[in-house]
Amino acid sequence: MSAHTPSPAADRPDALPFRAVVPAGGAGTRLWPLSRAGAPKFLHDLTGTGRTLLQSTVDRLLPLTGPGGVVVVTGRRHEEAVRAQLPELGAGAVLAEPSPRDSMAAIGLAAAVLARREGDVVIGSFAADHVIDSGPGFAEAVRAGVEAARAGYVATIGIAASEPSTAFGYVHMGEPLGLADAPQVRHVVGFTEKPDAETAAAYLATGEYRWNAGMFIVRAQVLLDHLHALLPVLHDGLQEIAAAWDGPDGPAVLERVWPGLQRIAIDHAIAEPVAAAGGVAVVPGDFRWDDIGDFAALTPLLAPGEGDGPRVLGRAQDVLAVDVRGGVVVPAAGRLVTVLGVDDVVVVDTPDALLVTTRAHAQQVKSVVDAVRAAGHEGLL
Amino acid sequence: MSAHTPSPAADRPDALPFRAVVPAGGAGTRLWPLSRAGAPKFLHDLTGTGRTLLQSTVDRLLPLTGPGGVVVVTGRRHEEAVRAQLPELGAGAVLAEPSPRDSMAAIGLAAAVLARREGDVVIGSFAADHVIDSGPGFAEAVRAGVEAARAGYVATIGIAASEPSTAFGYVHMGEPLGLADAPQVRHVVGFTEKPDAETAAAYLATGEYRWNAGMFIVRAQVLLDHLHALLPVLHDGLQEIAAAWDGPDGPAVLERVWPGLQRIAIDHAIAEPVAAAGGVAVVPGDFRWDDIGDFAALTPLLAPGEGDGPRVLGRAQDVLAVDVRGGVVVPAAGRLVTVLGVDDVVVVDTPDALLVTTRAHAQQVKSVVDAVRAAGHEGLL
Repeated sequence: MSAHTPSPAADRPDALPFRAVVPAGGAGTRLWPLSRAGAPKFLHDLTGTGRTLLQSTVDRLLPLTGPGGVVVVTGRRHEEAVRAQLPELGAGAVLAEPSPRDSMAAIGLAAAVLARREGDVVIGSFAADHVIDSGPGFAEAVRAGVEAARAGYVATIGIAASEPSTAFGYVHMGEPLGLADAPQVRHVVGFTEKPDAETAAAYLATGEYRWNAGMFIVRAQVLLDHLHALLPVLHDGLQEIAAAWDGPDGPAVLERVWPGLQRIAIDHAIAEPVAAAGGVAVVPGDFRWDDIGDFAALTPLLAPGEGDGPRVLGRAQDVLAVDVRGGVVVPAAGRLVTVLGVDDVVVVDTPDALLVTTRAHAQQVKSVVDAVRAAGHEGLL
Repeated sequence: MSAHTPSPAADRPDALPFRAVVPAGGAGTRLWPLSRAGAPKFLHDLTGTGRTLLQSTVDRLLPLTGPGGVVVVTGRRHEEAVRAQLPELGAGAVLAEPSPRDSMAAIGLAAAVLARREGDVVIGSFAADHVIDSGPGFAEAVRAGVEAARAGYVATIGIAASEPSTAFGYVHMGEPLGLADAPQVRHVVGFTEKPDAETAAAYLATGEYRWNAGMFIVRAQVLLDHLHALLPVLHDGLQEIAAAWDGPDGPAVLERVWPGLQRIAIDHAIAEPVAAAGGVAVVPGDFRWDDIGDFAALTPLLAPGEGDGPRVLGRAQDVLAVDVRGGVVVPAAGRLVTVLGVDDVVVVDTPDALLVTTRAHAQQVKSVVDAVRAAGHEGLL
């Protein structure tokens, strides 16, 4: 066993509290022009519930952590908006990054700060811009993941694939861990990048693969130990920042150290190498999940419109559709949007930019964003 | 021969001057939301030439009439806009109707007013919202029509049909009139309403049918004589208004008499019954003509865009199309319009209303207008 392999027998504090870390970043390029660099998708109510994706994420986690148990890590550019959307969080619950350094630095910073504040805790990392149904499945998966984390594992949650999607990575499940209180938790054989359709279908045929939703549950100290072993310079930088965070030198240390931190995703930094050494577990999640990667994914999350017409994100009375089946309309400019005879249409109407496409082209919206940039309209991105 | 039949031998004033009458009305419903009741299509530059349809119509006619030879008849609601667009016309050249009374009242009023001002003249009536190419064909057709009018006929211009359109009425051509200076002019056997596709194709197969573009050229006195015989009450009302028009009682007489005038199209009032009596002639026109009835008709009139992408009415830099073949985009709200993967798309972006459809549905835009009205958004119509 390598140094990263958990030692379930030793150091098993069953009472370690659970804390949630919410990395709030990502531009949501394929949701342009609704999602912008200055107003990314986690700041929007994309499902018409009256709560933004960030707010819904925190709403989902607070009952699992208890009051004060959620920390949000976001870019400095979005700090004010995040605080405004989450007045229930304390001042110290929003960690603002001076610049993007990818998910390992974001989650590692939160782990180090929380460990300094509270001693060892179990942390769970959940992106701010995913949608999860309101049933009991999510809480049960987190509970099981916390059990695995207390046993020393890096636990992830595997989503039951509803189709051989090429938009997600997959997690390959192995044998059960044998946890008495969470028998469903299994070893992770490995992770895969987004596959092609044929490979994805082959994965699903085995029954051993699930979507990787990028959720990780792990003891803060275990995470930091893995980081220390695998990326010691990044570990030391984060610890230096965390040690100063709540003191008078916090801002100065952050400014000095942060820019030099390595940019790397937690998947590559920790999950993949630790899985190879047997230290990652997967909880088969029994809930609906979506990362709303594009407007096609958004549509089924919205309430059905009249008849079989397009669904509306916004005020239904701002949309008039004639002879249209399916699709989604976002009337976000306060104007009347009318559509005639275009099935599965996607219309996103904002005050300074309009997108017209169809659900079948939703994944290619990035090419529009590229064209917008190439035309010199960076201000619209 | 009935009383309406012309008497070519008698009363043939070869020197009668030519005057143009431009009825400027019609909402252009199928061009919504670009064309509105408050800003109908004749007030718009729909072809990207820098001149509105009304201005282009007058530009085309003034060289044929000479200075001061064009009269515009429009609704009171549009009088100010018409005068602003046509500063080259004198104050008396814009006749404002208190309310819409259809084309017979509009053209009859102009004929009566011109006859009072100038004595008998040949008048030609040309809608303000049609598009005609800039070649010599139109002027030649008008010249021949004036010859026929001087010979006592109601002359119309028949457009060579490029397809068996169901959007236009047709004129059925008979034998040549035998005019020495305009040998191409023929008798009209009759007019038809908009036919179905099969009937239209059968018409064209005979070689004897042309599109009826609603252009009429006739001596003012001949027109008024026909009107006197066919609709004497309407005739007398128009004459009463015309007699007072340029005097101090003009406005009062107009207010008193106009509301009671019969609403009827000149086609039904004059052209059809006079044609049945042998008094209508047709000049086969050798020019391209379009009434821009919908956005599909608009497209070929615009300059081609890059590659085979959509054509743009407005600033080309306000439109970004990716993977789009054909179609038309009208960026009239000053925003960036992006389209992805919708061939033959029609996007009309105005400050308070947006339309998204395809060229194939262009004729059904009226159903959107109906839905807008039914939804209580009359202010957008």
